[in-house]
Amino acid sequence: MRFSEETIDDTEYERLRARYEPLTRSVRELIDATIRTEADEQTVAEATRAVEALTATLRERQITGTHGVRFTTDGRGVSWGNPVIGERNPMAPPVLINRADDGRVWTEFTLGAPYEGPPGHVHGGISALILDHLLGEAASNGLTTPTFTGTISCRYLRATPLGALRAEAFIERVDGIKTYARGHIADADGPTVQAEGVFITPAWARGENW
Amino acid sequence: MRFSEETIDDTEYERLRARYEPLTRSVRELIDATIRTEADEQTVAEATRAVEALTATLRERQITGTHGVRFTTDGRGVSWGNPVIGERNPMAPPVLINRADDGRVWTEFTLGAPYEGPPGHVHGGISALILDHLLGEAASNGLTTPTFTGTISCRYLRATPLGALRAEAFIERVDGIKTYARGHIADADGPTVQAEGVFITPAWARGENW
Repeated sequence: MRFSEETIDDTEYERLRARYEPLTRSVRELIDATIRTEADEQTVAEATRAVEALTATLRERQITGTHGVRFTTDGRGVSWGNPVIGERNPMAPPVLINRADDGRVWTEFTLGAPYEGPPGHVHGGISALILDHLLGEAASNGLTTPTFTGTISCRYLRATPLGALRAEAFIERVDGIKTYARGHIADADGPTVQAEGVFITPAWARGENW
Repeated sequence: MRFSEETIDDTEYERLRARYEPLTRSVRELIDATIRTEADEQTVAEATRAVEALTATLRERQITGTHGVRFTTDGRGVSWGNPVIGERNPMAPPVLINRADDGRVWTEFTLGAPYEGPPGHVHGGISALILDHLLGEAASNGLTTPTFTGTISCRYLRATPLGALRAEAFIERVDGIKTYARGHIADADGPTVQAEGVFITPAWARGENW
């Protein structure tokens, strides 16, 4: 599949974000409503046709293929379409990454109906998705150091309730081309899922920036 | 959070599926269009207002809280809102689970822009999400045996391209309350991600059906 690769400056980034983020937020709400609605047949059929018409309008001008990763002029990665952090992906909660001075990353987010596995609780794979991303952010210094995931393991301590959650991750140690990262998801009572991952620096990137 | 718990008969299930599945499919397309559109400011603003209005209409009658798992009268679990298999969740690809006579489960599905991590490739956490679910389906005999995930580990052999993929999972062995499952995701050239998981049968469920 084709994807975009380009650099955008901060002004352009903010301009596009202001244009597309409200649409993304509205579709995020529509996802929740689509799962939970009890509307009658006619209402649902009309809504379906309306959504199809909107999609056709938006597709009149669209990129070929997928977004890829764009970079701002100061080197930050802009992952518009990313399913965890993407500001243009309605699937993303989204997770907003905070970075402490020591390189530790953390985030607070809320998960509702679209992320449910066991009744009232977060799908275990959604926890794995978020932790994979967060450990990757820690290991790659915010996607500025190229790494790819070698392995990731999640240990489920107890079921994670839907609602307000916190997650964090940090680099445990670096051993040659391998970076070992750890992290967890927690509710108000403490950690529910722990994760550890091994991230690999590819040969082409050793000793230079991405 | 509250969630629904109820049994529905097959006729009612099919009736509701026929009503809501087309809406879900249309919102799934809208997610893709939202990520990829290059529509101008006015078009996007109008689309945003239209989506908000649709959401309000659908929310006029909606369930309180989340869907939970409902059961058909023949004991199948119906996970409408599930982010991997949910027929009413626009986030779900959706993955349709096939079950072989030997208990092995497999599925073929296509992932596009909303599932992208590295440019042109599947987000590693999305692979983990799908494998967590698939191993859980294998370990729980299609959600008829109650299990919860103890641990799951994914090994990334190479990047998984967006596009047509296949995944499968099977029970490797059962040891007391622990069920060991394995699986993988593959593209046309073979496996890209391998997974193994340990699933636990909870004390309250040992020796009886869910």
